[in-house]
Amino acid sequence: MERYDIAIIGTGPAGLEAALTARARNKSILLVGSKALSDRVSKAHEILNYLGLPKISGEAMAEVFKKQIAEANIEITEGKVMYAYPMSDYFALQVDFTDEILEATTVILATGLAKTKGLPGEDKLLGSGVSYCATCDAQFYRGKRTIVLGYTPKEEAEADFLSEIAAEVLYFPQYKDEVHTNEKVRVIKEIPVEIIGGMKAEALKTDAATYETDGIFILRESIAPDKMVPGLALKDGHVDVDLNMATNIPGCFAAGDITGTPYQYIKAAGQGNVAALSAVDYISHH
Amino acid sequence: MERYDIAIIGTGPAGLEAALTARARNKSILLVGSKALSDRVSKAHEILNYLGLPKISGEAMAEVFKKQIAEANIEITEGKVMYAYPMSDYFALQVDFTDEILEATTVILATGLAKTKGLPGEDKLLGSGVSYCATCDAQFYRGKRTIVLGYTPKEEAEADFLSEIAAEVLYFPQYKDEVHTNEKVRVIKEIPVEIIGGMKAEALKTDAATYETDGIFILRESIAPDKMVPGLALKDGHVDVDLNMATNIPGCFAAGDITGTPYQYIKAAGQGNVAALSAVDYISHH
Repeated sequence: MERYDIAIIGTGPAGLEAALTARARNKSILLVGSKALSDRVSKAHEILNYLGLPKISGEAMAEVFKKQIAEANIEITEGKVMYAYPMSDYFALQVDFTDEILEATTVILATGLAKTKGLPGEDKLLGSGVSYCATCDAQFYRGKRTIVLGYTPKEEAEADFLSEIAAEVLYFPQYKDEVHTNEKVRVIKEIPVEIIGGMKAEALKTDAATYETDGIFILRESIAPDKMVPGLALKDGHVDVDLNMATNIPGCFAAGDITGTPYQYIKAAGQGNVAALSAVDYISHH
Repeated sequence: MERYDIAIIGTGPAGLEAALTARARNKSILLVGSKALSDRVSKAHEILNYLGLPKISGEAMAEVFKKQIAEANIEITEGKVMYAYPMSDYFALQVDFTDEILEATTVILATGLAKTKGLPGEDKLLGSGVSYCATCDAQFYRGKRTIVLGYTPKEEAEADFLSEIAAEVLYFPQYKDEVHTNEKVRVIKEIPVEIIGGMKAEALKTDAATYETDGIFILRESIAPDKMVPGLALKDGHVDVDLNMATNIPGCFAAGDITGTPYQYIKAAGQGNVAALSAVDYISHH
């Protein structure tokens, strides 16, 4: 199997600039994220301070970026990276768009603002009845009771998929849009409060009731970085980086909002550039 | 006299982005540098990895930047800042375009790649017969012997100016272009090696001879940052900054090539953005 030089996770300004720079340096890249690019970009009203793009709407900026990426022959793989395990001299990537484990010599984390803290019990039970990926783990729940916490409408497809395998799927939408799932999925509009369990997840407690279950899928837009890369050091809730965008894990770099304030497009792009060049440098010394 | 919120020194991508961001935050700014922008930008062949500006020549990029700065009503003051002295709660700026001492609450250093080390004797005799600014210090050399080390053709005008006041001007061009100075200026094509003197500068030693003098003007394109801001900490020849682009001097920030590798446009712009927001933050807490 091909081992990529650089896996770039995220398609906001940080990830896209990292991809452009890595490509300019002739590195093989796997760029994973949303082909629609970051929501934060396309939903921005007007950006006044991106040097090179005077007074531009987020939508127009996203179009410029998409066109540039396409012209540079960079492909975006639509999907999510669930885990990037540091091995001795590469990273093993578990993704939601193929069953294969992918490999990359280096990883650049550019998934944007790290989301809220996990639920009580989530950390402890992750891998023991708590999963972040229905595509990856549905097989373990054949004929069983499952719960899906969906943080974006995209996750409805995951709940539908799970309902073909599991005996029961309770879907807890954590957004305001209307829910469109199949009739086997039971939609419950409550707010999760805690995951209960000893050696394994046993129930979900919400603001209204408690639901017994065999497995809980927590599907957020992005995986918390320290869950994605085991052992990754955080600082004040952000990935701790140095001026070269290096994290505490050799070969793992980070760029953009994930590294902390200010949350600015041009800063994210600048850090993506540095992260890519640091990855190139790392590759040439290993 | 007006005290500027932020003095931005340098008109490459770092300085320009800092100015755009500071202006978007309604801060008063003094942006000092070359109206022609950084030579390094306009002379670049083709830039492949500036997110937002696909495959663009340096010249075209400089035009985009100039237009954007003009449209944002940001004025570039053509000139050089010689010194930025940290006072108790502001910086006192000695510049080459006015005799007045200007004031700014914060300073952003964005003058690009710091130039070569100084000559032997330069540090010790700075202010004692060695000066970086003919406009500022010519008055002290009325009727005296002076030497000018000019590192760009622009400095020929300084030598001409000095020749109206001093009794003797020896001009040592440190570039290859043809020299056009007035007939009172004696042009000598030798390479300076050392500045000799005890309490005061007494002579310039070159690769060919030794010239006695009362004063030596060393006119480089940019002043070394730790000479510009006394007490500024360097690291490996670059200004030492943290992730917020803060230096060791409170209220003094730095961005772009001056902070070290990689020397990249988008990285410089990103750092300029961060430096400006850090300056805004500093102002609101002081």
